Amino acid sequence: PSEAHRAAAEARQNVLTKPPGSLGVLEALAIKLAALQATDRPRAARAPIVLFAGDHGVTAQGVSAYPADVTVQMLHNFAAGGAAIAVLARELGVKLHVVDAGTLSEHDVPGVTTDKPRRGTRDFSHEAAMTTDELSFALKAGRRAVERARAGGADIVILGEMGIGNTTSAAAIAASLLGVRAGDVVGAGTGLDAAGVNRKAEVIEAALATHGLRAADVPAAQVLKCVGGLEIAALAGAMIAAAQGRIPVLVDGFIVSVAALGAVRLNPSCAPWLIYSHRSLERGHRVVLDALAAEPLLDLKLRLGEGSGAAAALPLLRLACALHSEMATFADAHISGPES
Amino acid sequence: PSEAHRAAAEARQNVLTKPPGSLGVLEALAIKLAALQATDRPRAARAPIVLFAGDHGVTAQGVSAYPADVTVQMLHNFAAGGAAIAVLARELGVKLHVVDAGTLSEHDVPGVTTDKPRRGTRDFSHEAAMTTDELSFALKAGRRAVERARAGGADIVILGEMGIGNTTSAAAIAASLLGVRAGDVVGAGTGLDAAGVNRKAEVIEAALATHGLRAADVPAAQVLKCVGGLEIAALAGAMIAAAQGRIPVLVDGFIVSVAALGAVRLNPSCAPWLIYSHRSLERGHRVVLDALAAEPLLDLKLRLGEGSGAAAALPLLRLACALHSEMATFADAHISGPES
Repeated sequence: PSEAHRAAAEARQNVLTKPPGSLGVLEALAIKLAALQATDRPRAARAPIVLFAGDHGVTAQGVSAYPADVTVQMLHNFAAGGAAIAVLARELGVKLHVVDAGTLSEHDVPGVTTDKPRRGTRDFSHEAAMTTDELSFALKAGRRAVERARAGGADIVILGEMGIGNTTSAAAIAASLLGVRAGDVVGAGTGLDAAGVNRKAEVIEAALATHGLRAADVPAAQVLKCVGGLEIAALAGAMIAAAQGRIPVLVDGFIVSVAALGAVRLNPSCAPWLIYSHRSLERGHRVVLDALAAEPLLDLKLRLGEGSGAAAALPLLRLACALHSEMATFADAHISGPES
Repeated sequence: PSEAHRAAAEARQNVLTKPPGSLGVLEALAIKLAALQATDRPRAARAPIVLFAGDHGVTAQGVSAYPADVTVQMLHNFAAGGAAIAVLARELGVKLHVVDAGTLSEHDVPGVTTDKPRRGTRDFSHEAAMTTDELSFALKAGRRAVERARAGGADIVILGEMGIGNTTSAAAIAASLLGVRAGDVVGAGTGLDAAGVNRKAEVIEAALATHGLRAADVPAAQVLKCVGGLEIAALAGAMIAAAQGRIPVLVDGFIVSVAALGAVRLNPSCAPWLIYSHRSLERGHRVVLDALAAEPLLDLKLRLGEGSGAAAALPLLRLACALHSEMATFADAHISGPES
């Protein structure tokens, strides 16, 4: 981030025709984007959405309300434009890039980029979800996706995910990296009942013990390898790549926030590039956001994923940029300042 | 509101390709708009902003950080496109209607509709802010503005305000109508220090005593007449007119919410038509929102007014409508439902 541009943006906000600070978060967003984009005129016009999909062997343990088939069915729905994120992308005028980062699909889905090391992860209740090479592949798949999105122009990138079972993987990662009980970070996902949520927590606690992930200071890569998801690893890789390419990232809900936690543990210098879009209803999200010292923009009781909450926050960034660039100053508009 | 359309919208939300309820507030918004607009396809495309400006005699008591001149200076800034709300209107592609509902301006301002019974209110620390006839005029000015905005097409109307001193008037109205201490509803406004805030509360408490507004069940019209503002009365008139014309209203911050409280007391049937956009940083807003049982969409630490918070919330309504109308159903997309 450019401290010079941050300071210039702060100075500008203080001479625009409004009481200083009165645009609150919209001021802070414009200042943050000016620093990240190293510009006097921050923008969020070009905001491609990159959605990574993956399947999870742990669904064999009955941890999701929906069958695993739905992941691949949804790939078709994304490509056909009927899914929530596809509608949001159209309405916002941004491109949606869908990546099969590890679903069970045996075929390429038209309109979806296939970039996966294997079909689904292994069941982490029995064995590591992926090998070291598969983890490395998935991290690089995230980087490749950011490079494709960037080729079409990107002031910011929006990251989303889809994968039946991925709240289980995300909760396992969070429980290990944050040293909290699984019960503190599991939620209903797509719609488990209370017994299902308890079962999910038990599966996670057992797996963390099996893989030795309750020790202190287990490396993030080890956690991702043992209980991660291919789409979650791709998300982490995408965040690191975006930060290295100086593109701010708009982070979605629980899963993407857990990927952010992983990315920050793998490469702490990516942290300033991550903008948290919303607080979801998924129970563990608050714990993860707190650990990241994140203050999300929206709180709309969303729990869909796909990048939907991040997409819903994009207009705030756009409005913040417009206000920053287009408002008159007190001097230009001949308006009196505060009385002394 | 149409209960048949509400039920149809709820049913539709439950068959769209997402876990039921997973779009949270975005589902609720679409359902609410469907009921209010009595349609299967709610819209928020045409969303004119109506901003009422007025001056306040009570500024003679030193209750604002800015001089009263700023109200008229800002009228020019609205018309010239340099004010925050003007930038937001452009970015959102909606028309901004500015009404001088009672500023001190001696002249018509180009681009602003003058529709006022007098130049500024009287100083309510000494006498009633307006006469009964002036209050009636201001309420009708609100109705006239809604009719003009509607003539250009309106799926929803966004209401905003500007007026140096109007947080003092709004706090006085709220303290009387809600029976709370002035100290519970006064805030910094455009930027008073702590001593200034205390002084403001004292001015309000004294005025409420002077005008007999601490009695139980003082009619809302009497409160508006004694300590109201012309722009606040116009806002209340606009809300009642919009509701009668079956147009939903997106309510801005503290001042507009106090006007909503007044409108609901004057005509309770307008309540369902009011959608609360944001929770502002102005201290009394929370108290007023709670009294209205309002759950605002955004919480962005705004305290500017002008309709800026309501404008910032408009994209959420638009996205909610797009999702409702354009998402595929489970049947259309051949996607499996939850496992039984």
